[in-house]
Amino acid sequence: MSQPLASLVILDRNSAQPLYLQLSSQLMDLIRSGLLQPAQQLPSSRQLAENLQVHRKTIVQAYDELLAQGWLESRLGSGTFVTTHFPESKPSLQTSFDPLQTAGFSFESKPFLQRPPLLTQGSYHLDDGFPDVRLAPLLDLSRAYRHELIRSNAYSRLGYGDPRGSRWLREQLSLYLNETRGLHTSAGNVLIVRGTMMGFFLTSTAFVKPGDYVALDSMSWSGSTLNLQQAGARILHVPTDEDGLDVEALARLCQQHPIRLLYLTSHHHYPTTVALKAERRMKLLALSQQHGFLIFEDDYDFDFHYERRPLFPLASVDTHGMVLYCGSFTKTIAPAFRVGYLVGPEDAITHLSQLRRIIDRQGDTMLENALAQLLEEGVIQRHLRKALRAYQQRRDHFAELLTSELAGRVRFRKPEGGMAIWTQFEGEVNLTDLSRRAFKKGLYFSAGSQYSDSRIPATRLGFASSRPEELSECVRILKSCL
Amino acid sequence: MSQPLASLVILDRNSAQPLYLQLSSQLMDLIRSGLLQPAQQLPSSRQLAENLQVHRKTIVQAYDELLAQGWLESRLGSGTFVTTHFPESKPSLQTSFDPLQTAGFSFESKPFLQRPPLLTQGSYHLDDGFPDVRLAPLLDLSRAYRHELIRSNAYSRLGYGDPRGSRWLREQLSLYLNETRGLHTSAGNVLIVRGTMMGFFLTSTAFVKPGDYVALDSMSWSGSTLNLQQAGARILHVPTDEDGLDVEALARLCQQHPIRLLYLTSHHHYPTTVALKAERRMKLLALSQQHGFLIFEDDYDFDFHYERRPLFPLASVDTHGMVLYCGSFTKTIAPAFRVGYLVGPEDAITHLSQLRRIIDRQGDTMLENALAQLLEEGVIQRHLRKALRAYQQRRDHFAELLTSELAGRVRFRKPEGGMAIWTQFEGEVNLTDLSRRAFKKGLYFSAGSQYSDSRIPATRLGFASSRPEELSECVRILKSCL
Repeated sequence: MSQPLASLVILDRNSAQPLYLQLSSQLMDLIRSGLLQPAQQLPSSRQLAENLQVHRKTIVQAYDELLAQGWLESRLGSGTFVTTHFPESKPSLQTSFDPLQTAGFSFESKPFLQRPPLLTQGSYHLDDGFPDVRLAPLLDLSRAYRHELIRSNAYSRLGYGDPRGSRWLREQLSLYLNETRGLHTSAGNVLIVRGTMMGFFLTSTAFVKPGDYVALDSMSWSGSTLNLQQAGARILHVPTDEDGLDVEALARLCQQHPIRLLYLTSHHHYPTTVALKAERRMKLLALSQQHGFLIFEDDYDFDFHYERRPLFPLASVDTHGMVLYCGSFTKTIAPAFRVGYLVGPEDAITHLSQLRRIIDRQGDTMLENALAQLLEEGVIQRHLRKALRAYQQRRDHFAELLTSELAGRVRFRKPEGGMAIWTQFEGEVNLTDLSRRAFKKGLYFSAGSQYSDSRIPATRLGFASSRPEELSECVRILKSCL
Repeated sequence: MSQPLASLVILDRNSAQPLYLQLSSQLMDLIRSGLLQPAQQLPSSRQLAENLQVHRKTIVQAYDELLAQGWLESRLGSGTFVTTHFPESKPSLQTSFDPLQTAGFSFESKPFLQRPPLLTQGSYHLDDGFPDVRLAPLLDLSRAYRHELIRSNAYSRLGYGDPRGSRWLREQLSLYLNETRGLHTSAGNVLIVRGTMMGFFLTSTAFVKPGDYVALDSMSWSGSTLNLQQAGARILHVPTDEDGLDVEALARLCQQHPIRLLYLTSHHHYPTTVALKAERRMKLLALSQQHGFLIFEDDYDFDFHYERRPLFPLASVDTHGMVLYCGSFTKTIAPAFRVGYLVGPEDAITHLSQLRRIIDRQGDTMLENALAQLLEEGVIQRHLRKALRAYQQRRDHFAELLTSELAGRVRFRKPEGGMAIWTQFEGEVNLTDLSRRAFKKGLYFSAGSQYSDSRIPATRLGFASSRPEELSECVRILKSCL
């Protein structure tokens, strides 16, 4: 070694890592990189301690460590040496290569998976349709979670559980879904997932093979499209009008291709919020039976419907086991709580739960039980009634603001439910520019490019997460940018 | 209709579902099934109310509902009819078909995914190597979680976050891993996952294509095998001896096939607990660079090492970005808390996080922040020191019991770390029978079939989750069954 060893080692006395571990780690790096060669002799512990100005014990500890691990060998009477058995390696020539930045193995990144991060940090927001988390029953949730944790100091309760999710939550959810949505499920029909995203990931991974034809609304949720691209599906777009999906157009597609799956937001179409009419629902179910395709019914905000009763889901009249029904607590409590449910025929649910087991084993048992407790106590139901009243008021207020403040600038239909108004801008508006200008003034809204590739200047403006006075400020900023 | 409508409807006055919803739901079913035909007239609300013995308002509400939803039409002066637009459907002939049990669409179940449920409900258990959850800092966790929930009543904190996980936890983990394992990471190198299972699911899904060759120890964790089967990999088995993976054998395999990935438990080999010697580690890294395969280093119980210092992971001396390092809080706190981490070159971590985003969007932000808080406060570190002392005592006690009580019946090597002893039974022992007999007497242990297909009567007997007196009882039961 041309350089003395001490000059290659840098010890940081302020680090939380003990000095001897810093030294042993750096010696390994030196051996690894070839700066210390196999069979090379190391300085004595006394000499190295002097050079590094540390206690000799530190050097002895580091050497002992490396001796025990097989990096060094001790030869009686002659000192300490780098093990001879190592493969020789030359100091790397790629000095600019940083293994913390760049993988040494090859891989292809997938452009479709590269999505910009969500920017929702503005003071004001007209978002995709999120709930107002200030209304969420967080204290109740905290109490229930704490209760779960404290009573759970037991082997079986904190061990591995059922990949289908907490039995308690599956039972409570069955009751709740049967009551509110006219379903006829029991716990065996329910798989607890981590939101609609996982529900559709499981479905597309388990049931769609590369090359399969899958039908989607021409405007749709990006999460469904991304998962279908990942599954290698051939995507067919079906037009949507003001009564929802054009089922006749779908019927024509079925004549041309074997359809494997239809992804559908039947209740409040995403993004446009229109409801699929009953007549079309019946035709759709008949079509799915006839052609054998499964329907993934994403009912992301069923509980938020302001005019008369919500439409029962397709799943409630599915007599042939063609529908997988999916919902989540994202809109009920907050997006950060990743709990949702997939409901369907027991054999399909079992199959999906076997796949789920190798993805993340199971959900968060504590949180699932806490939610079951809140459902059993009626806390979630009371929260939903309270939120529904607040959101209806906000919808009405926001619709009035759009009409009075932005007359001639925007077109919209007041939605019967949901948390956002589908808003089309009149004339040659560049929504990307508009949303950037608004963001600089503290208002976030989406430029709408995630809904489809079409060039209509239209987007979802979510009203539920803002109080009426906040909505007024939102519209004031938006108006000032137009 | 030959039968009067009232005889086809069953209303349950004890149900939580309102009567009018029960009625509207059943009318939909009747229309759906063809028992009510398109254009058929319904009885008047007065008449049906009388027949069903309910208030007339109930019938009016149900009819209104169905009129609004488009199932019925009202013709002025002549009454209420089933909509004419529906496709005609005949009453189903398959009367035995139950859509709650059986899907109407076809799918192939995958035999390899069909695994028996874990049976761990016995009074006593010598499990796979789980922690003692009675020692876990649950009160601290509860406090931190509550704090997170209560301070989180804010739009951005409860909204969608970074798919890579809580920044706070990624920073705290980097510090912790750098201190304890000699890594050199920062937050950008860390992806928070829901345990080792998800870490390997992401890796095998993102980096292994169908037909790729992947190398594994001849005995290995079933979670890795299942995920490789799901990914369509060709699995090559590498022998393991008492110094860990036989790297020379792997080198020969590399001559025959292009290896894409090596799955490895380097520190305490799963299931046998032996450590991979330093010399082999160096050769393995050299081999991975030479052949370009990535190493998935599953370090599932690094923190539990009783003799001298644990061996630093391969990742700590990986100068070429060949290693993805994975660990979890499963053994630190309890299996029910699904939080783990994958550490590697930033480009690979970014790629994996893009895939993770379409699986379940993100982890549980509240729980991740609560764990970050416990790491920052040192609570987890103190818990680990306490648990380490307890587990070392239990290991020693259990090893003594095996030696004294089961002399001549079992062979084992006292492990330097981990939570289980790899125990080989002497002679012609049928472990499946033995474990069944023991289970009847209240003791759970695994028959070992999940580790490999080999017929050696050997299994992992986990000692960490039982107190010394419980271990004594476990061995007493085991002895009585032999």
